[in-house]
Amino acid sequence: MRTITWNADQHTVEMIDQRLLPAEFRLVQYDDYKQVSDAIRNMVVRGAPAIGVAAAYGLALAAVKSRAVTSSDLKAELYQAGKHLAASRPTAVNLVWAINRILRRLDDWQADPDDLRNLVVKEAQRMADEDVEINLRMARYGADLLQDGDTIIHHCNTGALAAVEWGTALGVIRMAHEQGKQLHVFVDETRPRLQGARLTAWELQQYGISYEIITDNAAGYFLAKGEAQKVLFGADRVAANGDIANKIGTYMLALAAYTHHAPVLAAVPTSTIDLSLAHGSLIPIEERSSGEVLNLQVDGKAIAPQGAQARNPAFDITPNYLLTNIITEKGVVYPPFQENLARLLA
Amino acid sequence: MRTITWNADQHTVEMIDQRLLPAEFRLVQYDDYKQVSDAIRNMVVRGAPAIGVAAAYGLALAAVKSRAVTSSDLKAELYQAGKHLAASRPTAVNLVWAINRILRRLDDWQADPDDLRNLVVKEAQRMADEDVEINLRMARYGADLLQDGDTIIHHCNTGALAAVEWGTALGVIRMAHEQGKQLHVFVDETRPRLQGARLTAWELQQYGISYEIITDNAAGYFLAKGEAQKVLFGADRVAANGDIANKIGTYMLALAAYTHHAPVLAAVPTSTIDLSLAHGSLIPIEERSSGEVLNLQVDGKAIAPQGAQARNPAFDITPNYLLTNIITEKGVVYPPFQENLARLLA
Repeated sequence: MRTITWNADQHTVEMIDQRLLPAEFRLVQYDDYKQVSDAIRNMVVRGAPAIGVAAAYGLALAAVKSRAVTSSDLKAELYQAGKHLAASRPTAVNLVWAINRILRRLDDWQADPDDLRNLVVKEAQRMADEDVEINLRMARYGADLLQDGDTIIHHCNTGALAAVEWGTALGVIRMAHEQGKQLHVFVDETRPRLQGARLTAWELQQYGISYEIITDNAAGYFLAKGEAQKVLFGADRVAANGDIANKIGTYMLALAAYTHHAPVLAAVPTSTIDLSLAHGSLIPIEERSSGEVLNLQVDGKAIAPQGAQARNPAFDITPNYLLTNIITEKGVVYPPFQENLARLLA
Repeated sequence: MRTITWNADQHTVEMIDQRLLPAEFRLVQYDDYKQVSDAIRNMVVRGAPAIGVAAAYGLALAAVKSRAVTSSDLKAELYQAGKHLAASRPTAVNLVWAINRILRRLDDWQADPDDLRNLVVKEAQRMADEDVEINLRMARYGADLLQDGDTIIHHCNTGALAAVEWGTALGVIRMAHEQGKQLHVFVDETRPRLQGARLTAWELQQYGISYEIITDNAAGYFLAKGEAQKVLFGADRVAANGDIANKIGTYMLALAAYTHHAPVLAAVPTSTIDLSLAHGSLIPIEERSSGEVLNLQVDGKAIAPQGAQARNPAFDITPNYLLTNIITEKGVVYPPFQENLARLLA
């Protein structure tokens, strides 16, 4: 089952409201690209590949709902919609990548408005299909890096929920599992939004993969003791030198793994690689609301004292030296990343 | 106000139920040492110095409630109570240290049972008084290491709540603040029991010290950006070589700080130093229940899927090379810790 789909009859985009999982599985439908933009911003849908496809479908919605009677008016509306969608979250490059891929084609398409509408929808659907295919290829390459008996620390959610159907880093784990390798996953809970405890745990249960939840800050303990042998995550943007932006906490996890000589593996589609940025410090880091940190409860009671403030950077930068490999749909990339990423994308 | 006190009239130990803070400030009274042992185990009271004093008062309770008519019967009961109390938590050495300090004196005290009862109570009270004095001295030494304008990441709770009245690492911050230094504290929430977000934030509010809560996994981000310049925490046990056991997450925090050349400061009374253990890997690490990790709620809903399991080590080991200084009531210790700790305690 796909986590985000285009309903061709009703001209709507359907997705799982990931904020409600695992307590509730609810599908939501959107018929306006601004709703899709809000869904990305509010993290109804999250995960770099998934928000790329969501934005593409957002443009499809903008196309089919537009009342423009000329192609140039329609294109102007689509550029406007693209700008709006691109502004919904700053860090994951897939969002801009997906939007630009469609917008760039508009100039090539000399068509009447209705044909143009169809072309945009088709392109968005093609991107969703490709995402599934890309993830499968990535999963096969990555699975070769996992051994029978491995215990892997996984950060955030990178499974089907983070993509269209299969996932990036979690797809690698799932593929190795389906190949018959016995794996155990330490699912770090991934504060503040708890994508690990909520979403990755939920996915692993469905796949029948052995796992235990750990607090983010316990990863160092398990790596130091040798109870975990590998670390695996996705990324929201990879700079030209292999520095990566990924969910907050990735950096500390990678640093601990590196210190204990545990391979640090990032699984990303090549659409996540942004050769226009020389290094990670150029990647814009989103800082989200204080409430995401402060809204925790235990036994129905708020944790933080009234009036408390919080800082909430949503991503951090993991420098390239901490990474062992970057797994892509075109193969596994080894250091030096600067040269090998350029070669991969050449 | 002291966070743990002996009520001489009623022969009870009174303490704040720290599990309820900051939502509720409730004092609890115990008249049986087994209740005190349970309170330590269930973390009604926590923090290495505080549980040491709690155990001493537990022995005082055992003494005054005992119906023994001979000194040797009373001593036998106290040894039994000491054994019971010592078993309540394994990692913090202060617990065993406090119990042994009283039990060792029993042989010196040639007294009738009532005098013996008084001697035990007096010794427990003396230990509580000393704890306050020791923390003040530690705070003064440590405050010299903090500069005006510093932003400090603080882990767990090491304030008045973790001791009798002043605190260890948070006492250092409080002292520097009272000396007029402008400080800002990033309070990491300290999963799973959230002593940072619950207790440290609450204390800092009362002291009027500027702070913001961050998730544990965000410390690396702020250190990498230079937004935090120092890291400060307590410890539950210091091995002879300066390796320390402290609340889970300390290791990853210290590693990130070390990587960015931010001083890593541990503030501990000398009673926390255990020269009998050559290095940190010999320190027993308590693993607590899965429920402490899984009991989180947001918007009244459980986070983890039903049936999820968790691992929950309560402490980790920070190797000595990551520490810049160990602050004690006898002065600031510099590397090499092996030699300098031995000299300090000689």
